[in-house]
Amino acid sequence: MYYAGVDIGGKNTKMGIVDDFGNVVSSMTYRTQKERGYDAILLDMISNINSLCMEAGFDIKELSGIGIGVPGIVNSRAGLVMSCSNLNWKGVDLAGDVKNLTGKQCKVCNDANCAALGEQRFGSGKNFKNLVFITLGTGVGSGIILDGKLFEGLGCAGAEAGHMGIQVDGDKCACGNKGCWEEFISAKAFVEQTRVAIEQNPKSLLAEICKDGISGKSAFIAAREGDSVAKNVVEKYIGYLTYGLIGLTNILHPQAFVLGGGIANEGAELILPVKSMLNEYIDNNGFYPYVDVVGASLGNDAGYMGAAALVM
Amino acid sequence: MYYAGVDIGGKNTKMGIVDDFGNVVSSMTYRTQKERGYDAILLDMISNINSLCMEAGFDIKELSGIGIGVPGIVNSRAGLVMSCSNLNWKGVDLAGDVKNLTGKQCKVCNDANCAALGEQRFGSGKNFKNLVFITLGTGVGSGIILDGKLFEGLGCAGAEAGHMGIQVDGDKCACGNKGCWEEFISAKAFVEQTRVAIEQNPKSLLAEICKDGISGKSAFIAAREGDSVAKNVVEKYIGYLTYGLIGLTNILHPQAFVLGGGIANEGAELILPVKSMLNEYIDNNGFYPYVDVVGASLGNDAGYMGAAALVM
Repeated sequence: MYYAGVDIGGKNTKMGIVDDFGNVVSSMTYRTQKERGYDAILLDMISNINSLCMEAGFDIKELSGIGIGVPGIVNSRAGLVMSCSNLNWKGVDLAGDVKNLTGKQCKVCNDANCAALGEQRFGSGKNFKNLVFITLGTGVGSGIILDGKLFEGLGCAGAEAGHMGIQVDGDKCACGNKGCWEEFISAKAFVEQTRVAIEQNPKSLLAEICKDGISGKSAFIAAREGDSVAKNVVEKYIGYLTYGLIGLTNILHPQAFVLGGGIANEGAELILPVKSMLNEYIDNNGFYPYVDVVGASLGNDAGYMGAAALVM
Repeated sequence: MYYAGVDIGGKNTKMGIVDDFGNVVSSMTYRTQKERGYDAILLDMISNINSLCMEAGFDIKELSGIGIGVPGIVNSRAGLVMSCSNLNWKGVDLAGDVKNLTGKQCKVCNDANCAALGEQRFGSGKNFKNLVFITLGTGVGSGIILDGKLFEGLGCAGAEAGHMGIQVDGDKCACGNKGCWEEFISAKAFVEQTRVAIEQNPKSLLAEICKDGISGKSAFIAAREGDSVAKNVVEKYIGYLTYGLIGLTNILHPQAFVLGGGIANEGAELILPVKSMLNEYIDNNGFYPYVDVVGASLGNDAGYMGAAALVM
């Protein structure tokens, strides 16, 4: 059977037609053009799903369902997008509207949750029935899979691990909490940590490398060149990341953490020290099982593939 | 049907015969006398269950099962007590041994998890299918109920919320983590917070009240008398407690938190400000559902009643 998965972003929308085994038979990416508003975005999406079906050699009528990931607050049970500041949506019945226009079952979910589901069904999480997915992007998204199913909490309001506080006397976050994990581990935070280190060590190799700008890769590049300032920035970041994973382990003790997003692209240089630090902690009491840490493997496809999995 | 529930503690063991509706038909508390070792404790327990059955007017053969809570690391799926430092047990097959000796099905679980289940089935958590139970005792125990069932994580190693870190640069905990929530909200921590405030304000009413010793009640008593030093201690404590609940809400978003243990006996003076602070945070984004905060209602009976519920 075939399913359409859509990952709507503030800038681009990615979609694909996926089968039960996670094979993508056709896919596309296009500009969301959010300024045109909800109705136009909706019609575009359906028309593009139609095109993808034709490209795959069948009619949209043969689709078994449509799943959609949205970067906002979604009540997935009701199919409602409660709020999506990126797209200026508030209280839209996206699942209902898609169903009315296509006659297909439709499920809607938060985009990070979709990506978590995508990785668990078809990506590097597929050996695990219990995992927590964390994206280390501009912000920090998370998704929780328990017993093979997406766990969202009451009103689909859970799985926002980026706003777990890790510094009780920390800085205020936009969410209203203080010292949120996101403020330590997002790509934005990492760039800021790099900037501060450069300010304090203007003659370091790190400073030299960043003279035209700082990115989430800068400190890793300079650390590979042996720069001690950069190594320190990376080590501290790994400490922050692991600290939150230890917190999540003490609550959920999943089989694995799957790390995605820009910073996770550093691969083994990030994953291995995090995994060893986390399991050194777990080993401390001698009776608790090992928790794996793996990099996400589907990249930007995780969102729409997981969205398709919502309706499988 | 009738079930035996047992709550083994380092000092005392509590047990009761409970029916499907949570009615306790007979119960008793006796000294565990742990120095006599595992076999003696086991035989005592079975003999006492026998007595309770007779007291209730039936034979132990008519029991539908035996559930046991143990203050340690328990693999409840396997029925094994991996480690219980309180009783000096390591790798004992408690469920198997009870089954062999009685012919009854037996389930074993961590004691805080049993108490969580007890409160959810028969206590102040009975209106909630999704809740997190936190005991504010000498240490901090926790139990998680999702969809009406105990959630324990891989190897039953989850639901240890007291060791979620809330201060990334905090003091080292015995568990190996830093800045654990327990170090801020246990009764022991609260007494220490009170002691420090007294040291800094030796002329306060709080200091006067505590001249013969400090307990987990002292700051609440002095705060009720209007002492600003004590009010400050209580307010800070409530802040630490709520901070961790916000973290748990961002991960699990349960319907409710149930607070038990010594400090929760302060009742509304603790519960109401925590509830209002937590929901003020939740309201901040306007779309997430309210989370209730209630005091536990079964007191010391929660453990054995929840243990009985393990086999219902």
